[in-house]
Amino acid sequence: MKKYVYAFNEGNKDMRALLGGKGANLAEMTNLGLPVPKGFTITTEACSNYYKENKTLSKSLISEIEEKIKEVETKTNKKLNDDQNPLLLSVRSGAKVSMPGMMDSILNLGMNDKVVEVISKLTNNKFFAYDSYRRLIMMYSDVVKGYPISDFEEVLTRVKKEANVSSETKLSGDDMEKITYEFKNIYKKYANREFPQDPKEQLQEAICAVFESWNNDRAIAYRKMNHITDCFGTAVNVQEMVYGNMGDTSGTGVAFSRNPVTGEDKLYGEYLINAQGEDIVSGSRTPSDISKLKKEMPSIYDEFLMCAKKLEKHYANMQDMEFTIENKKLYILQTRNGKRTAKSAIKIAVDMYKEKLITKEEAILMVDANTLDQLLHKTFDEEKLKEAKIIAEGLAASPGAAVGKIYFNAKEAIIAHKNGEDVILVRNETSAEDIEGINSANGILTVHGGKTSHAAVVARGMGKCCVSGASDVIVNENNKTITFKNNLTLHEKDYISLDGSTGLVYLDKIDLVEPSITGDFKTFMSYVEEIKNLGVYVNADNAKDAKQALAFGAEGIGLCRSEHMFFEDKRILAIRQMIIADNDLDRNKAIAKLLGYQKQDYEEIFRVMQDKPVTIRLLDPPLHEFLPKTKEDVKKLADTLNVTVAKIEKRIEELREFNPMMGHRGCRLSITYKEIAIMQARAIIEAAINVSNDKIQIEPEIMIPLVGDIKELEYVKKVVDDTAKLIMKKKNKQISYKVGTMIEVPRAAVLSNEIATKADFFSYGTNDLTQLTFGFSRDDSEKFLNDYYKKNILSFNPFETIDQKGVGKLMQISVHLAKKAKPNIKLGICGEHGGEVKSIEFCQKLGLNYVSCSTYRIPIAKLAAAQATIRKKENN
Amino acid sequence: MKKYVYAFNEGNKDMRALLGGKGANLAEMTNLGLPVPKGFTITTEACSNYYKENKTLSKSLISEIEEKIKEVETKTNKKLNDDQNPLLLSVRSGAKVSMPGMMDSILNLGMNDKVVEVISKLTNNKFFAYDSYRRLIMMYSDVVKGYPISDFEEVLTRVKKEANVSSETKLSGDDMEKITYEFKNIYKKYANREFPQDPKEQLQEAICAVFESWNNDRAIAYRKMNHITDCFGTAVNVQEMVYGNMGDTSGTGVAFSRNPVTGEDKLYGEYLINAQGEDIVSGSRTPSDISKLKKEMPSIYDEFLMCAKKLEKHYANMQDMEFTIENKKLYILQTRNGKRTAKSAIKIAVDMYKEKLITKEEAILMVDANTLDQLLHKTFDEEKLKEAKIIAEGLAASPGAAVGKIYFNAKEAIIAHKNGEDVILVRNETSAEDIEGINSANGILTVHGGKTSHAAVVARGMGKCCVSGASDVIVNENNKTITFKNNLTLHEKDYISLDGSTGLVYLDKIDLVEPSITGDFKTFMSYVEEIKNLGVYVNADNAKDAKQALAFGAEGIGLCRSEHMFFEDKRILAIRQMIIADNDLDRNKAIAKLLGYQKQDYEEIFRVMQDKPVTIRLLDPPLHEFLPKTKEDVKKLADTLNVTVAKIEKRIEELREFNPMMGHRGCRLSITYKEIAIMQARAIIEAAINVSNDKIQIEPEIMIPLVGDIKELEYVKKVVDDTAKLIMKKKNKQISYKVGTMIEVPRAAVLSNEIATKADFFSYGTNDLTQLTFGFSRDDSEKFLNDYYKKNILSFNPFETIDQKGVGKLMQISVHLAKKAKPNIKLGICGEHGGEVKSIEFCQKLGLNYVSCSTYRIPIAKLAAAQATIRKKENN
Repeated sequence: MKKYVYAFNEGNKDMRALLGGKGANLAEMTNLGLPVPKGFTITTEACSNYYKENKTLSKSLISEIEEKIKEVETKTNKKLNDDQNPLLLSVRSGAKVSMPGMMDSILNLGMNDKVVEVISKLTNNKFFAYDSYRRLIMMYSDVVKGYPISDFEEVLTRVKKEANVSSETKLSGDDMEKITYEFKNIYKKYANREFPQDPKEQLQEAICAVFESWNNDRAIAYRKMNHITDCFGTAVNVQEMVYGNMGDTSGTGVAFSRNPVTGEDKLYGEYLINAQGEDIVSGSRTPSDISKLKKEMPSIYDEFLMCAKKLEKHYANMQDMEFTIENKKLYILQTRNGKRTAKSAIKIAVDMYKEKLITKEEAILMVDANTLDQLLHKTFDEEKLKEAKIIAEGLAASPGAAVGKIYFNAKEAIIAHKNGEDVILVRNETSAEDIEGINSANGILTVHGGKTSHAAVVARGMGKCCVSGASDVIVNENNKTITFKNNLTLHEKDYISLDGSTGLVYLDKIDLVEPSITGDFKTFMSYVEEIKNLGVYVNADNAKDAKQALAFGAEGIGLCRSEHMFFEDKRILAIRQMIIADNDLDRNKAIAKLLGYQKQDYEEIFRVMQDKPVTIRLLDPPLHEFLPKTKEDVKKLADTLNVTVAKIEKRIEELREFNPMMGHRGCRLSITYKEIAIMQARAIIEAAINVSNDKIQIEPEIMIPLVGDIKELEYVKKVVDDTAKLIMKKKNKQISYKVGTMIEVPRAAVLSNEIATKADFFSYGTNDLTQLTFGFSRDDSEKFLNDYYKKNILSFNPFETIDQKGVGKLMQISVHLAKKAKPNIKLGICGEHGGEVKSIEFCQKLGLNYVSCSTYRIPIAKLAAAQATIRKKENN
Repeated sequence: MKKYVYAFNEGNKDMRALLGGKGANLAEMTNLGLPVPKGFTITTEACSNYYKENKTLSKSLISEIEEKIKEVETKTNKKLNDDQNPLLLSVRSGAKVSMPGMMDSILNLGMNDKVVEVISKLTNNKFFAYDSYRRLIMMYSDVVKGYPISDFEEVLTRVKKEANVSSETKLSGDDMEKITYEFKNIYKKYANREFPQDPKEQLQEAICAVFESWNNDRAIAYRKMNHITDCFGTAVNVQEMVYGNMGDTSGTGVAFSRNPVTGEDKLYGEYLINAQGEDIVSGSRTPSDISKLKKEMPSIYDEFLMCAKKLEKHYANMQDMEFTIENKKLYILQTRNGKRTAKSAIKIAVDMYKEKLITKEEAILMVDANTLDQLLHKTFDEEKLKEAKIIAEGLAASPGAAVGKIYFNAKEAIIAHKNGEDVILVRNETSAEDIEGINSANGILTVHGGKTSHAAVVARGMGKCCVSGASDVIVNENNKTITFKNNLTLHEKDYISLDGSTGLVYLDKIDLVEPSITGDFKTFMSYVEEIKNLGVYVNADNAKDAKQALAFGAEGIGLCRSEHMFFEDKRILAIRQMIIADNDLDRNKAIAKLLGYQKQDYEEIFRVMQDKPVTIRLLDPPLHEFLPKTKEDVKKLADTLNVTVAKIEKRIEELREFNPMMGHRGCRLSITYKEIAIMQARAIIEAAINVSNDKIQIEPEIMIPLVGDIKELEYVKKVVDDTAKLIMKKKNKQISYKVGTMIEVPRAAVLSNEIATKADFFSYGTNDLTQLTFGFSRDDSEKFLNDYYKKNILSFNPFETIDQKGVGKLMQISVHLAKKAKPNIKLGICGEHGGEVKSIEFCQKLGLNYVSCSTYRIPIAKLAAAQATIRKKENN
């Protein structure tokens, strides 16, 4: 018979899929001999079955659980519902992939009217006993039954008021007994029966509730946001309760084996005396720094430090641990690889490599490529920072600089973000409901909560700047005001700036400056360069961007969209003049102007890139994109060009298209308006000749877009070649250049063998290829794609990450055909996928020579490429 | 050394590619012992070389030609430029594929000031000698030099006037000498030198001119229109001149071995006494019917008839021949397979099969599938015809019934046709410049010209109705009037009706009725049915169309576009109501109305189709297509639905798309608006149950459009299956149905192995597949595709005939994957290509089970399918 329940000593860390991350690690720690409370794990398969069997626990599963309970009773010498030494349990979720805070837990299970009295006597602590019981009733009502917890909170508040105390910990045992009595009545009111006294009933219901929490809205949203698709269901960990709230010799804490913000090799964390774990996570009491524990409980601190080092070495990774001290005895409740900022990840990787804990390859794999984004954000301009006014100070919870308008709730933050505003989300404290709001904000400021509070953890996970625990400020979420120490009050949409690395809050906007690659980051990137074997180019349209890209390590320009330079004031006028012209004289005049601009642009770019490849795409968008859209602008243009409004309107009407994406654009323009291609070729070749006179050996790569047939390529290539020949003869100077094409039309993919014979290189334009392969218009598809995600028809956005199955298959066919026809053809990608981690791994698999991405994705792309290289080797 | 010149006795009929059609047939006839004037052919390869070598004749070619001239001189006992018995030559074009009238010829070559005198004495016919000379000068000036022929025509007109005669034949020899003198002066005026006296110079220049005529505008247009792409260049036939204009014992004629209009087994043609060939073709003199020749020159007639039968038997096909009688001696100048109407083609095929001249397969291959279109045109309603007023009678030059507005020139006919008008082109006589105008017209009426005049030949080739030689009417092309015998005058845009089968012209419009398949056509189609093994379905959206389709032999409905039924008055209101509804109540009310309509539609269709397959496509177009377009209509709808204009405008704005072709349509609608799919599935299943109660065993095939991923198909299929299950349970009746999908998105093609597992059938939607594979929007691409044709980048319109290389490759991949996954999957095509001959042959090759096309293409598709079957066998 299949086994659905594993005692901790029956599992190990490699059984994540079956036992969940938490369960696997509890097993591993148990086997390592660490002080772990006894318990067992119900597998994710049992969760699947639960859903398959219409949300019921099978009889065989129940009897397996009961058997394991007996084992725990034996090991702990305690018994459920016992008169002498009763066993209490925790029931916690734990999926294969960590989803912190998304699913549910229930603690103190096994409490009832009898047991509470036994424990009260046993511990001689009535407060503790009834505090535990009332917590169970409240959690059970909330998590298992879904009753409103505000009813319970009202009672707590009222009793505290009556007793005139500010904190629950200051209430008496009798107060807690009274609260427990009232809680039971609330339960009865909703349930129409007494609170269940049978611990087994409590346990079964709790297990069901945890299974169900796999599919709550938050968990679904979290999985979608994090592209978690390859697992189903949560495991359930049932474990002996240990208590940090048994008085001043007890406590609870969370700590990282190294600093998750900076990477420093020093314990980092917080603890609370006389408290349970959720008191830390919720931020309702402000905890002490872990370093204080060394003074308060030196032997416990030493024991914990030893455990931490042991675990770190064992997992060869920085650990994030939860611990509880019950009456001077240390228990480790959980360990997992710690989430960290990119800065920390890099320092830890470099340090551990230097400490010989890990290999260079492991160091590279240790850093999540996506998180590098954090290091590539702009930082405050040091000079401007000096003049800025500090208005508050909180905890440096997640690093980075953020500037934006204040919003006081997630909903409005999301809307403002969609409208293109920079947003700072300001909250007293955040909860799981705020996740999307946090995602929409540049930065988060909270009044309550430490460095491990919800806001801090989530912000770090997303690489967002966060300042938490700014306890000096008063936030009124209803009135939408924030008031600072000096009585300054700001309102919704006022600007502030946050420094997540110092915890400082500034008034108004502060200018930002470009980031750079130095220190550990530089060292780390040198490892990356050593390993990777895929070129990383940049999509850059002007010399300024090219310069920044070089600073980030770009090895060439993979896509220079020549038309992006057309949108400046004078240039747009020239191109409009060209489009409106109805005679050769006017058209040639306009083209001559454009020639001058283009030549200058290319020359500047060539001078920046020196001998690196520069790929210039000929004019791509349909001409109507260059024409004015509003009546006002049409009138203005008519006046400037001295033509009638009617003439411009007629031309706009002529150029109007039903489906512009599939209209008169790309190489189709060069075929109809040969003179534009001639002008662009001339500008490129003349610019290259000019810089070659200064000993810059540039070899421009001229890219012809939207080719679907070899004859299109041949036609435009001939225009380019003829122009180049003419100019080189005139200037009496030979330079070499390449002519290639984009593969972005499905037809080009399946005819790549033919097309390759005339192309020096291919660049996969996966934006358009995705549109045409799916038949999804990028501008329109968002509307129905949301339904697709909801109904589980698509699990990802194909415009963000390459659809490997469909679009990828066409690319595969194309690569295969192209290499057969021309083994040395240079292959790259310049769609936006070129900077996306999963897509880069796919490109490596396909055997492309390079990816091209936006400037700020270059280090990410390089790391992804190196990781892909390592994984490819591992798989071979 | 390669041979570029072949004497007629060195070639044969299988050398068309090298010698051209005319040359190959002259060779064949020579070898058959028929009376062919001596001569030789310069190959098409020589023409290619001419273009490669910058339009010059190589020295070696010139010497080869001179050698062959000597052979002709020996065989004829005549010599170029001889004092005693001078040789005169004709130089004619002749490509691999016949392009009648598109390229140039030059006659009477070898004439000069000396030879004209020799011939005048030799024939004792000064008129004839100078007439020949002046013809040479005129043709040479026109064809070789491009001088305006109006200068020459003016002289002719003036001299005729001076001599007071109506026809050139009535001029004297002295008149002709005078004309010749003046012609030479005109030549000198333009050329700045005398008319060349050296026959060899004349010959070389003439050969160059014929080579060049391959690339004149008319020829290029003709090749494009007829999709002639697989040959290059024209051959040149140089041949001893024989003369039909040597007096009353001479003549010339053209004749078909059977009737090219009706197919009757009887000589059909015309001749003129004392005339050259171009006199017949130009229509300037009205010729006599060939039957008269039997009386006028019985032995010549018998000899010609014998030749005709010999040729017909030899070629196993009806022949189109030119002959000349020179002084009672018959010469055959040309033979080729005769162009014929579809009616004639079918009768000849059936007759020849019965005569055992050809096999059934040869009979099937003898009829051009595209021409069947002619037989499927509507004919006049017999009752209405009785009441109609006959206003003129001409020759029944090309059969069919045509109704339309009169236009007097090609240009305006083309514009009117583009504007959707029915056009009758009325001309005194037509010339090559009118071709596109003829193509735009429903019918052609000419005043001059016989049944073999330009208008008649071209119209028959295109299957257009034509009445020629309506000599009673007076057409004033400048004033745009046509005046009939009874002084009735009609103007541009007045309606007339033409009967090309009787030659009658009627006043005003006459109602037309549907054609039917009877007689020889029926017999012929029975051969077709016997041979073909590809199903032919129809694209029909209602019971009326389905009925007509059955009459034409449809074997099922391959595409029923359910939304086409939505556009009727009441229905469009219901669907608009559904789209505008912002609450469930209103939406469900509207859907309930639609359900009623749909159920009725399907039931009617099922009753017509009985047990034949009916494929119904679920709603496909984006919803905005159903909403009103003008402000006025929006207002009307708002009033009708009792909502505000703003509400409707808002909804229109919400539904607006940038690229609707790739927007929210197809199965994407069923996923977002599940309720529509449920309604349609319910209508289909309930209709099927209703007719099954009347013992009609319909098995509806429900087709889900625009699928790109198996999950899309699964989702909608589940909606359909759940609905069907529910209804069958409710009605307590089981029926079977199929669920399949269209393959019209490239992604579906490359993932066909997956998708096939869930689909009972695939139907290739090649319209959209073509759009997405090329990235060509059908609505926008015409603008730039014209440039593509001109610049030889595309040689065909991929929306008319399947792009076998690109789109076809995706289809091939799809068929391969689908059959691997599900060997018995039913495969068809329902794009417009399903009725196109070349595309059908391709579908047969791919191994599809059926093609589906519009009603009037069914017999064409069947014939194409049979021909494809035969060719496939031949190739195996």
